[in-house]
Amino acid sequence: MKVTVLGSSSALPTSQRYPSAHVLTAHGRMFLIDCGEGTQMQLRKCSIRFGRINDIFISHLHGDHVFGLYGLLSTFNLMGRTNPIRLHAPANYDLLLRSHLSDFDIHLNFEIVFVPLQGNDPAIVYEDKHLTVVAFPLKHRIQAYGFVFREKPADRNIIKEKIEEYSIPSYRIPGIKKGQDFVNDEGMVIKNDEITVPPPQPLSYAYCSDTMYFARLSSFVKGVDLLYHEATFDGSMEKLARKVMHSTTLDAAKTALKANAGTLMIGHFSARYDDVTSLVEEARTIFPSTIPAIDGNTYNVKELSTGKQP
Amino acid sequence: MKVTVLGSSSALPTSQRYPSAHVLTAHGRMFLIDCGEGTQMQLRKCSIRFGRINDIFISHLHGDHVFGLYGLLSTFNLMGRTNPIRLHAPANYDLLLRSHLSDFDIHLNFEIVFVPLQGNDPAIVYEDKHLTVVAFPLKHRIQAYGFVFREKPADRNIIKEKIEEYSIPSYRIPGIKKGQDFVNDEGMVIKNDEITVPPPQPLSYAYCSDTMYFARLSSFVKGVDLLYHEATFDGSMEKLARKVMHSTTLDAAKTALKANAGTLMIGHFSARYDDVTSLVEEARTIFPSTIPAIDGNTYNVKELSTGKQP
Repeated sequence: MKVTVLGSSSALPTSQRYPSAHVLTAHGRMFLIDCGEGTQMQLRKCSIRFGRINDIFISHLHGDHVFGLYGLLSTFNLMGRTNPIRLHAPANYDLLLRSHLSDFDIHLNFEIVFVPLQGNDPAIVYEDKHLTVVAFPLKHRIQAYGFVFREKPADRNIIKEKIEEYSIPSYRIPGIKKGQDFVNDEGMVIKNDEITVPPPQPLSYAYCSDTMYFARLSSFVKGVDLLYHEATFDGSMEKLARKVMHSTTLDAAKTALKANAGTLMIGHFSARYDDVTSLVEEARTIFPSTIPAIDGNTYNVKELSTGKQP
Repeated sequence: MKVTVLGSSSALPTSQRYPSAHVLTAHGRMFLIDCGEGTQMQLRKCSIRFGRINDIFISHLHGDHVFGLYGLLSTFNLMGRTNPIRLHAPANYDLLLRSHLSDFDIHLNFEIVFVPLQGNDPAIVYEDKHLTVVAFPLKHRIQAYGFVFREKPADRNIIKEKIEEYSIPSYRIPGIKKGQDFVNDEGMVIKNDEITVPPPQPLSYAYCSDTMYFARLSSFVKGVDLLYHEATFDGSMEKLARKVMHSTTLDAAKTALKANAGTLMIGHFSARYDDVTSLVEEARTIFPSTIPAIDGNTYNVKELSTGKQP
């Protein structure tokens, strides 16, 4: 699991920071999360192949999270895409998007499979062999959703030498990988943990933007290895943060602490901060394992899982 | 008169080329022409102050010429703008824009004064003390307009020493600057060209994108100092160019030649060209004074006027 930050600005981009967009790479798939203006140019700068993106998640319908989508879809089209795109977005976006594309003379040669985000409870919105994605409500000026990507536990790994030692037939291996003991022809039981080793811990990544602080949020992202949480403002601007329903560094850190996250990545920085070092330092007073989101950087989730308490 | 190129790509941006947008700076005013995705980031990179832009011209409603507008207007708003923006765009955009802003929860604190572009004849769409702007029809898949910005002839400059020599009273000076002779108290006539020097030649700049070749176009941009003309394709791709109603380098050069332009700047390059040197060379076989549009560069129109035949 790797996360590439394409944009770490809030609504007002700067010369160093683009509007919100992340790419999660996991098990050969790429998931685009939010699509602020300039996302397609950032994808190119990061040498990410457009064709590998099959799922796009839009957190909410504010421009800095979605205004790059029209250009990106149009570019998919010009590049000859025919594979469908699954678009996970607030329910009312389906109609808006289609009418906007038609207003601009864009006729797609691929299907958009729209997966509506709705309701006030966490819900599985995507699932494959390796991953589940749950969307959960955030607390913002308009309906907004966060996303948590969790790897499914993998099978146990069989120890090669033991196959020979106990003459384990190959048809028994799938069951053993699922945790079964092995009983040989003489009726001898070999315990599973003698012939297998546990798989790597499943990894997880959550994306929370935009939102103000609310207590229940930490339960939605419990134990994630990497928690991306917006921190538009520093702690002294709490009053403004509440008013516009955004978070401070301290809000983000409190949620990371309560959730027992591995690492907290803060982003969605207000344009008033040229340098975000002080924001990171402030968050670290509550949650030491905090890093800033930096445009164009790629982060290895396994390496960032270390802050998590066992 | 200076022109800053913010984007020189066609519909598909590359890592080096953004979608279409130019800024013309003239007499302390800034005019934004087209507003492709990422325009606001390019403005920042070029250190152009957003507040100095009061007029935006949109050539046509294809996304690569307009998808940066929503973010830019939203940014104007967040920066506290209250001055109106004049938006010159195809007539049907007024309604589309307003409904799109409202769909995205954008409530502007400044007025958009919409100036509709319509009809099939050149028309003055802007005029001030120093400049006129004429919009003229292009030939593209949808209704599209080009723009020509022409300085008005300035007043003649009075020679300071002559004021003393002939005791010219100050109330006569405005008339003399307009070309009047001076008649002194004794009835002696001093010819205007003895006491004044002519003003600099008025400069002009035209923007033609997107369009296929058509004979009448050169008459719309007659004698401009700097002609920006799209050249999406090289000459070998004439057939495709006609089909999608774009121009080749040779089309652009023919129009520049017929118009007797000072310099031809080509742009709106297809993503298939990593390096556009060969496109420029091809255009030069017909019109030697050709340069490529390069993102982030600023061009002095006076310096580029030299190719023009007297």
